[in-house]
Amino acid sequence: MIFRQLFDSTSSTYTYLIADKHSREAIIIDPVIDKLDDYLRLLNELELNLKYAVDTHTHADHITALGALREKTGCKSMMGKESSSECASAVFSDGERIQVGSISVLVLHTPGHTDDSYSFVVAHDDSLMLFTGDTLLIRGTGRTDFQNGNAKEQYSSLWNKLLSYNKSAIVYPGHDYKGWTSSTVGEEIKNNPRLQPRNAEDYALLMSKLNLPNPKLMDVAVPANRACGNV
Amino acid sequence: MIFRQLFDSTSSTYTYLIADKHSREAIIIDPVIDKLDDYLRLLNELELNLKYAVDTHTHADHITALGALREKTGCKSMMGKESSSECASAVFSDGERIQVGSISVLVLHTPGHTDDSYSFVVAHDDSLMLFTGDTLLIRGTGRTDFQNGNAKEQYSSLWNKLLSYNKSAIVYPGHDYKGWTSSTVGEEIKNNPRLQPRNAEDYALLMSKLNLPNPKLMDVAVPANRACGNV
Repeated sequence: MIFRQLFDSTSSTYTYLIADKHSREAIIIDPVIDKLDDYLRLLNELELNLKYAVDTHTHADHITALGALREKTGCKSMMGKESSSECASAVFSDGERIQVGSISVLVLHTPGHTDDSYSFVVAHDDSLMLFTGDTLLIRGTGRTDFQNGNAKEQYSSLWNKLLSYNKSAIVYPGHDYKGWTSSTVGEEIKNNPRLQPRNAEDYALLMSKLNLPNPKLMDVAVPANRACGNV
Repeated sequence: MIFRQLFDSTSSTYTYLIADKHSREAIIIDPVIDKLDDYLRLLNELELNLKYAVDTHTHADHITALGALREKTGCKSMMGKESSSECASAVFSDGERIQVGSISVLVLHTPGHTDDSYSFVVAHDDSLMLFTGDTLLIRGTGRTDFQNGNAKEQYSSLWNKLLSYNKSAIVYPGHDYKGWTSSTVGEEIKNNPRLQPRNAEDYALLMSKLNLPNPKLMDVAVPANRACGNV
């Protein structure tokens, strides 16, 4: 398997490229429009054939490259079936698998940050890789106060789905703002302050007190992302 | 093995934490003083005992946390024997091994960016991890025009040492300015424009034409780093 984590410093977004080294088929998770040329260069240099571009959810803090990548590479662009994207090639739903050569990407619906929030799971050698979008961050979780967010649903997504994996499963988040690139399920259960409440009610209370300002780009990014980033 | 790549966005520096998950002993490569509290938090949360803090070379673009980490954790701070550090606990030289629990870190002298430039090699499962400092970057190499840099020596460090490893060996650089986090030896040989010259003379000619400005922090960082970052 070929695996690359890429960082957009403007929005502190992580983008992930996963490919089958034999078939050269690839999937990209959460690509950012500003980095389009970098992705195309890397795909070309690694001699990869981009089959899928997927978003974990409708982002409010950056504009997706899904539409542009489809146009440039002929890949399929995909989002969750709950998204109001007007232009995805196809949608996915909970429990589906996306096949990339010999790599099977399990799709998990993990609503809470938004209603269209998904995570992806890839088994590689002896390790499990969880691409958790904005549902589970390193020492944090995604806010639940806009875009049909719901703290109790997020609590369920966290505890009944993501955190039920083995403690050694690697967490690859959608963002990090302090330069940390990965974590594990066990490390987050122990050290993530958002995972200390013992029930959904207490979690919802904690989330209701955050009083966060809206993301700077929200008014631009959400409509743009519904149009596959074609602004 | 526990492995973490950490990013300092101010200087675009990568810092690496490697630890034996059984003995809990750890080594940190190229720590940045501004991130000291983050390192201490992570070491504490992961229940690690920092045994060594090492720099790949005397940095000109950020201030090292070697001195501060030694003071806070009791670790040994180490640099190459060519460095003019006044305060390292010990120095290393080509071919030595630093033992961190069951993990053996091979030390390679890879001069060229500076005369005290070193790389580190760690074998993990079936893969080789190369921590190449500023000698080999992703699609680039470290400049050779200051701090006793020498383009012909760097050419030899690259081709006779780092690039002689298996093509699948993973390259973890000291910096990246576009958000790429790793590469491989094979990928760099094929795609790195600095690796296209066929001999040391042509490489030195290429490097002599770069005309780069000095790093903004150079006048502060180099003397500070010779004092283990204790400014």
